[in-house]
Amino acid sequence: MQVYEIGQRGGIDGLKLTERPTPKPGPGQVLLRMRAASLNYRDLIIANGGLGYAAGSRIPLSDGAGDVVEVGAGVTRVRAGDRVAPIFTQSWLGGEIGRHLPTALGGDIDGVLAQYVVLDADGLVHYPGHLAYEEAAALPCAAVTAWSALITLGQLRAGETVLVMGTGGVSIFALQFARMTGARVIATSSSDAKLARLGGLGAAELINYRTTPEWGKRAAELTGGRGVDHVVEVGGAGTLANSLAAVRPGGRISLIGLLTGFGGEFNPIPILLKSICFQGIRVGSRDMFEAMNSAIETAQLRPVIDRTFDFAEAPAAYRYLESGVHFGKVCIRI
Amino acid sequence: MQVYEIGQRGGIDGLKLTERPTPKPGPGQVLLRMRAASLNYRDLIIANGGLGYAAGSRIPLSDGAGDVVEVGAGVTRVRAGDRVAPIFTQSWLGGEIGRHLPTALGGDIDGVLAQYVVLDADGLVHYPGHLAYEEAAALPCAAVTAWSALITLGQLRAGETVLVMGTGGVSIFALQFARMTGARVIATSSSDAKLARLGGLGAAELINYRTTPEWGKRAAELTGGRGVDHVVEVGGAGTLANSLAAVRPGGRISLIGLLTGFGGEFNPIPILLKSICFQGIRVGSRDMFEAMNSAIETAQLRPVIDRTFDFAEAPAAYRYLESGVHFGKVCIRI
Amino acid sequence: MQVYEIGQRGGIDGLKLTERPTPKPGPGQVLLRMRAASLNYRDLIIANGGLGYAAGSRIPLSDGAGDVVEVGAGVTRVRAGDRVAPIFTQSWLGGEIGRHLPTALGGDIDGVLAQYVVLDADGLVHYPGHLAYEEAAALPCAAVTAWSALITLGQLRAGETVLVMGTGGVSIFALQFARMTGARVIATSSSDAKLARLGGLGAAELINYRTTPEWGKRAAELTGGRGVDHVVEVGGAGTLANSLAAVRPGGRISLIGLLTGFGGEFNPIPILLKSICFQGIRVGSRDMFEAMNSAIETAQLRPVIDRTFDFAEAPAAYRYLESGVHFGKVCIRI
Amino acid sequence: MQVYEIGQRGGIDGLKLTERPTPKPGPGQVLLRMRAASLNYRDLIIANGGLGYAAGSRIPLSDGAGDVVEVGAGVTRVRAGDRVAPIFTQSWLGGEIGRHLPTALGGDIDGVLAQYVVLDADGLVHYPGHLAYEEAAALPCAAVTAWSALITLGQLRAGETVLVMGTGGVSIFALQFARMTGARVIATSSSDAKLARLGGLGAAELINYRTTPEWGKRAAELTGGRGVDHVVEVGGAGTLANSLAAVRPGGRISLIGLLTGFGGEFNPIPILLKSICFQGIRVGSRDMFEAMNSAIETAQLRPVIDRTFDFAEAPAAYRYLESGVHFGKVCIRI
Repeated sequence: MQVYEIGQRGGIDGLKLTERPTPKPGPGQVLLRMRAASLNYRDLIIANGGLGYAAGSRIPLSDGAGDVVEVGAGVTRVRAGDRVAPIFTQSWLGGEIGRHLPTALGGDIDGVLAQYVVLDADGLVHYPGHLAYEEAAALPCAAVTAWSALITLGQLRAGETVLVMGTGGVSIFALQFARMTGARVIATSSSDAKLARLGGLGAAELINYRTTPEWGKRAAELTGGRGVDHVVEVGGAGTLANSLAAVRPGGRISLIGLLTGFGGEFNPIPILLKSICFQGIRVGSRDMFEAMNSAIETAQLRPVIDRTFDFAEAPAAYRYLESGVHFGKVCIRI
Repeated sequence: MQVYEIGQRGGIDGLKLTERPTPKPGPGQVLLRMRAASLNYRDLIIANGGLGYAAGSRIPLSDGAGDVVEVGAGVTRVRAGDRVAPIFTQSWLGGEIGRHLPTALGGDIDGVLAQYVVLDADGLVHYPGHLAYEEAAALPCAAVTAWSALITLGQLRAGETVLVMGTGGVSIFALQFARMTGARVIATSSSDAKLARLGGLGAAELINYRTTPEWGKRAAELTGGRGVDHVVEVGGAGTLANSLAAVRPGGRISLIGLLTGFGGEFNPIPILLKSICFQGIRVGSRDMFEAMNSAIETAQLRPVIDRTFDFAEAPAAYRYLESGVHFGKVCIRI
Repeated sequence: MQVYEIGQRGGIDGLKLTERPTPKPGPGQVLLRMRAASLNYRDLIIANGGLGYAAGSRIPLSDGAGDVVEVGAGVTRVRAGDRVAPIFTQSWLGGEIGRHLPTALGGDIDGVLAQYVVLDADGLVHYPGHLAYEEAAALPCAAVTAWSALITLGQLRAGETVLVMGTGGVSIFALQFARMTGARVIATSSSDAKLARLGGLGAAELINYRTTPEWGKRAAELTGGRGVDHVVEVGGAGTLANSLAAVRPGGRISLIGLLTGFGGEFNPIPILLKSICFQGIRVGSRDMFEAMNSAIETAQLRPVIDRTFDFAEAPAAYRYLESGVHFGKVCIRI
Repeated sequence: MQVYEIGQRGGIDGLKLTERPTPKPGPGQVLLRMRAASLNYRDLIIANGGLGYAAGSRIPLSDGAGDVVEVGAGVTRVRAGDRVAPIFTQSWLGGEIGRHLPTALGGDIDGVLAQYVVLDADGLVHYPGHLAYEEAAALPCAAVTAWSALITLGQLRAGETVLVMGTGGVSIFALQFARMTGARVIATSSSDAKLARLGGLGAAELINYRTTPEWGKRAAELTGGRGVDHVVEVGGAGTLANSLAAVRPGGRISLIGLLTGFGGEFNPIPILLKSICFQGIRVGSRDMFEAMNSAIETAQLRPVIDRTFDFAEAPAAYRYLESGVHFGKVCIRI
């Protein structure tokens, strides 16, 4: 079978299409024919040596969807022919994050950018039937992260206000889940055209952070001065000052991404003075994924896919994500 | 000013239109010109001597909306000209129910079926600006009860399934709030015409409980056998057997009403065997009311008003509610 | 090896000592040399045909402790020589009860009254090192039930008041966990001698329910009229009226047992009027068991063992439990 | 009457004993004869111009206890002769912090270092009867902060591990509340003598942070490498690196104090990678204070008072606190 491998240091150029023998499922395992994968900003970080993974070759990408081809002894969760998606952290089935093994796909262990993969049956979920492969492939990291932040940990309620940043996968899922839950959304972007699309997805307020550098203060004003209830922080140190200005006393900032880089620092005093809950989010459990799928099915929600590349074009997909022009998920057809 | 008074034993015939001097607001108080009121099943129970209130004359009804005419010394929460609605339990501003005084409008103390009322400024909320007086008057008991059950205590999440019964005020608000939150709704009624209207409000599944006497079992089947997550129980002992059949292990039944009467008993064994949370609900606090208003405003939700009677027709409004033909709230224009 | 078998209809007389071949652990499984078991009221119910289990022969009892003798392929959770206790519902590792298979020991599947048992490695926990086998054998059902009721679901806080009934295993663990958490305990019994012992375990208030038939009202008085925060209800319909009198508005009743029988019914009105949370409890998950073990270890808490019988005396142990004279757990040395 | 006043810029030297007319309680208000006050690190910060309060003269200190001398019209919460303590944020009675007015004693408004003060009856609590005035005066800021962090927001459970730093008021209350709740405590100090006293209060593990500069790593080792569940962070940027090393994945750091100064910054990456909840704490509500009092009464817990100064020695009390040699609270007899 064909797979991609990537050195966890060599950048996008380190991505290589190669051959491996098609694996066989052992007891409790499942053989999947992957049909689609999707990229996350994390995959760029890993390609560039971030997150501390070992340097050896690895099949990249955590997010995909495919068909069950064969099941090993004792498997009852899925059957041949089922459409499934792997969970991001293969060993995190439920409960808190604390106790789980380092089993993140495409990082700790081989990922899904391959024609076939073998995974534990416990590490798979069925996804809603109205979703195409690419749409399902968009879920495991970005959507579960947004769900974990807003719903599982954030316990978002109808009528609350959520601030989302930009047009990456997590931010757009956060917008969609917030709207699905009856919350009000304030969205930011540097592009008026993208803002218009965010408005089309249901954002009630739009801020161009280029023309409004104090966008955090502006967001607070748009709540009548009260402050937003929940900030979905994907920027890191470079955006935190604005996030802290935006959030209400007693509010919540979910720290999800570090798009502005790893180097920054920030002063914790506003966390104290405003009694903020500043919560780090590392994707979520299988239980969260399944609860989210139920919500996606009920709402017949469709993930926003920006562009789908062919399997042979995987490096181009990486570069497209890197360019930052995307609106929603970047996918690969396998 | 004109007010209605009702003996708390004499039934609807005990309702009398009479005169009282227009009250003046003391320190911390507010004079309201009431513009609309709405009826709840509780008001029929009280008229018939239920709930243990004293027998003396009382201005009835808990739910209304009106204009602030004058504020007493020290009042800052509201100003003359504001449109407000009183809260059901005047002393329950936040936190748990346990510690609050017996200050339910139209029961412990005089209610709102009057041209003017004086209340503490703390006992009022501003309501969303898109609502007419009658719509706002529908909120204090029925809507806050549904909100308290599903959202505050039930922590309902998108993708969960809620069972609602019939077409009374609480049930329709529960349907609306469940849909607003991304949940799936199964609705029951004895009338196919009413079921069609419930479907129009977003119920995904409809059960005629007359033609399907085992509607609890049917509801469980409609969840793939898993059981519904949350039952909004307004019937009491007469419907509990079906509710217990419908709910999933570990699920929740909010006990809100006793439309099937006060006499019934039930066997608690299924509560134990299915690990049910069986939660009594007595309306909610001012904090809940305000959180709900924010959600109603975000969704621009409109309460379902069945019919609005003139002030002079208040007894007819009571009788109309008693007939059980309504779909949504029965209101009175003041 | 020697095992007991019991028909699930024939009463204690149906208990028979017999021989079975010593089992071998398959992949993911563990062979345990059982060292102690303990009885629960549930075991009497099952012996008498309750709970709806099939009539065939079964190794009885859910609760035990023993040594790991041998582990099957792929087992990493435990090693030979470890001291472990099985979890009550073998498939309930974490999360909510809703989704778990019928795998309760000594009911759905064979239990632990045997010299050797084979179980999935996932279905075992390590227990605190200061506990003897009999003490560890007291935990899986009774202690986890008390923990689940008070701590996991009840979120008991220091300074709250808990009402416990009698001197069975769950009640005494509830007393101990409540005290460990800084809560105040009101305990009932029909025996002044037993009440004195409950006082010795830290109960602040003692009520003889024989001499004080309105013990629920008395319990409420002992909280200054406010009502108790949490009732650990082990009696069922026969004690519920008193429990409902004891609990505060907004309080919680955990329904755990039905010692007064299966036939009773009760009127749900007080649940509604007092806004009670009436919560059924069916033991708990492995996550709960492990959290509880950590608490037991921190406090160096010792379960209260009333009496330990030899393996050959198992029927006598059942009869002793049936007599109701016990104070704490009844155990069997294996 | 005699009061102290302090300019909010002039340091301890700005503290002046002066005369003001004894105030009279208006409607809803209460006249208190203060009997004791206690100092918090915040009072030093305010004296030195921190926290942004206006520069004018103010009666300092938030924490005190006294006798009700006279009540204004309409007051029912307290009566003459009652022993009470004011709450820190006078307008925060319950619920979340978000909506409350700037009414912190000794900062936004006049404090309690005075022979008499007048406050709203709503801003007072009764305290447990076994406490002396100085002990009660230790509660409003330091104890409520520890309670809010560990219990209300932290939902600490028996068997969890808490890390506390040093021997200030919050840290010692946190140790006491953690022990009261059945949690395990790891305590740090730069003094072996103080560590011994922390051990005497129930800390299971003691770390001298001077001789063990990597005390965060050491704390994690003391949990078997799992990490502590909850860090009570009173140092700020200067101690955060160690706190982040100590805490388990998915754990909680309550940010309470900034003893290491206001200038520092920190890198948020570990918050993300470990999925930490980093929660700012600004004391708590009246509801929390009352829940805490109930727990203190149940446990008959006594606050740790290091030293009590006479009213005339208030500047010496400030200087003593500033020296950092204290173990527990520094109080003033009034």
